Amino acid sequence: MSNPSLLILAGDGIGPEVMAEVRKIIDWFGAKRDLKFDVEEDLVGGSAYDAHGTPLTDETMAKAQAVDAVLLGAVGGPKYDVLDFSVKPERGLLRLRKEMDLYSNLRPAQCFDALADFSSLKKDVVAGLDIMIVRELTSGIYFGEPRGIITENNERVGINTQRYTESEIERVARSAFELAMRRGKKLCSMEKANVMESGILWREVVTEVGKDYPEVELSHMYADAGAMQLCRAPKQFDVIVTDNLFGDLLSDAAAMLTGSLGMLPSASLGAPMANGRPKALYEPVHGSAPDIAGQGKANPCACILSFAMALRYSFDQGAEATRLEQAVEKVLADGVRTADLLNEDGITPASTSQMGDAVIAAL
Amino acid sequence: MSNPSLLILAGDGIGPEVMAEVRKIIDWFGAKRDLKFDVEEDLVGGSAYDAHGTPLTDETMAKAQAVDAVLLGAVGGPKYDVLDFSVKPERGLLRLRKEMDLYSNLRPAQCFDALADFSSLKKDVVAGLDIMIVRELTSGIYFGEPRGIITENNERVGINTQRYTESEIERVARSAFELAMRRGKKLCSMEKANVMESGILWREVVTEVGKDYPEVELSHMYADAGAMQLCRAPKQFDVIVTDNLFGDLLSDAAAMLTGSLGMLPSASLGAPMANGRPKALYEPVHGSAPDIAGQGKANPCACILSFAMALRYSFDQGAEATRLEQAVEKVLADGVRTADLLNEDGITPASTSQMGDAVIAAL
Ligand SMILES: CC(C)[C@H](C(=O)O)[C@@H](O)C(=O)O
Ligand SMILES: CC(C)[C@H](C(=O)O)[C@@H](O)C(=O)O
Repeated sequence: MSNPSLLILAGDGIGPEVMAEVRKIIDWFGAKRDLKFDVEEDLVGGSAYDAHGTPLTDETMAKAQAVDAVLLGAVGGPKYDVLDFSVKPERGLLRLRKEMDLYSNLRPAQCFDALADFSSLKKDVVAGLDIMIVRELTSGIYFGEPRGIITENNERVGINTQRYTESEIERVARSAFELAMRRGKKLCSMEKANVMESGILWREVVTEVGKDYPEVELSHMYADAGAMQLCRAPKQFDVIVTDNLFGDLLSDAAAMLTGSLGMLPSASLGAPMANGRPKALYEPVHGSAPDIAGQGKANPCACILSFAMALRYSFDQGAEATRLEQAVEKVLADGVRTADLLNEDGITPASTSQMGDAVIAAL
Repeated sequence: MSNPSLLILAGDGIGPEVMAEVRKIIDWFGAKRDLKFDVEEDLVGGSAYDAHGTPLTDETMAKAQAVDAVLLGAVGGPKYDVLDFSVKPERGLLRLRKEMDLYSNLRPAQCFDALADFSSLKKDVVAGLDIMIVRELTSGIYFGEPRGIITENNERVGINTQRYTESEIERVARSAFELAMRRGKKLCSMEKANVMESGILWREVVTEVGKDYPEVELSHMYADAGAMQLCRAPKQFDVIVTDNLFGDLLSDAAAMLTGSLGMLPSASLGAPMANGRPKALYEPVHGSAPDIAGQGKANPCACILSFAMALRYSFDQGAEATRLEQAVEKVLADGVRTADLLNEDGITPASTSQMGDAVIAAL
């Protein structure tokens, strides 16, 4: 039997640096745990644009469809701000999500004990926080038609369309209920059903799917109230399910609240492939951080933990995933810190590769 | 000359209770400062539905159009959850905003010194916070057509449309720049121009309007990054301008972060009327809080401070507005607290009317 395959798309900014550390981890699992992967690398985002004039070539897209999992670094940077919308770095990422049909985006917002002081929130509000935001990722206003800038009555009009079908809502709701079953059995669905008809349909379908999960305590919240409650008392939540746009804002806010932004991974999952594995892409929640790129300052943990999610969700290696997660936690507990995890002067931060090496040592 | 006119729409839940305190304040200004108003009261939201089968009658709408300013309490409650979308309490409020064309919604997020401990954020992150979020209020996905739930390929599809014309963006941007000129001369515009064409147009038009305000330092941020930055370091902002939906979430998150949610007013302003005053509606940021309605527990300060905004923005009484604001601050500093402003047991909270009386005493 051949090894499972990985496509690494390191992308822009700090993407390549943090991904280099993930490569070390992958090699470690191959050598020490006999978990071997066939790894290929390719370009996405601005770096793909620089090389090919497009943020994702058809060849790369085809590779992504063929592999068992994609690992992505980050895309974007000020250098590409001037580009036309259709070739901006983000379009590469959005094309991957859409064409791989990765409808369920899992974004854990977890507060690492060793980093609780790092949050802008009071320690007791965030210590021990562990919630999972399930964001719909292939539909809604990100992809709805019609869209564009048209001219009407002699002025320009910007248009985007929020569109959700019942089956789109159903499948992401189901994945959120499944997750809730394996966690604290609480699910909160967020929309603006008081203002948007798409929110009304969302609430109805989620409620309907909930009948198949009588053990899960389901609640509904308007997204604005959800934003408030995440800021006020995030620990009231277990799993949250929401649409693409609300999920973008709410998961970023939640990630920031933990104080562990440089630590947070994500998984984007689609339907099972012929081999039973879901289509999958794993990426850190943080962006490409062009201001510190190339300086060896970036924290590779979020990207490493994204690989841990790959072990769990794509390769059924939950125990190995936990091993890797615990290694990261041990490194933090030992006080190894990249610059983003330090707020005092006078301490020399660990470099990106020192952090990666420390994780390997802890493994 | 006749007195300026006010229409009071107390609405649902705690609306009538907090508005009763505002009436006292209005009477005080009439008696002691010779600032007299002609006040009329009417129904909106669930209470209007109960009386007339609609959350806003045409007669009330006509009155709102005719007066100098509308003061609104709050709308909504679980009792009305079962109602059809078209007659939900919120539709009354949305109709007022739309038909009065109140395009510029000013939402201060201010942290009251006496309440800084109340925030879920660390004290140094929020103490002294004073930002203003300008939210576009009459367009975007709240009102765009087509909208609704249709059937396609044998399943239901929920649709809403984000639509912004250049002139809609321009006028709200202009009001935000004007505000920035009277404050710290910093404006941050938030959208998702990396994903939405309506965001691209938004950014272009705001940039263009900015040329008329060379003194204002203009920046742009993606709304998800904006949500993060509001949670991380809100004091970096002075004025924020954003669309209807982003504004809904971001202003609620910002309000919650201050710890002073029960204290925050808002103003919704439109174009000048024949008498030079803008069309205007003032309302607290908080909701109808049905769980505590009718118990004399509600904090009337947000509603009182909304009247202060009316004095400033509708009646050119900035000095009197400041007097009222300082009275509220004095009451807080003196330790008078409604239940929402207390986190220790053993202290007897002030009732809604005691709080109102204390403000009058401080005046
Ligand atoms: C880069 C951008 C297109 C993307 C999004 O808006 O989805 C990012 O913010 C994210 O959350 O993954
Ligand atoms: C009550 C509701 C319709 C309203 C909104 O979504 O605008 C509220 O949340 C607000 O922010 O004023």
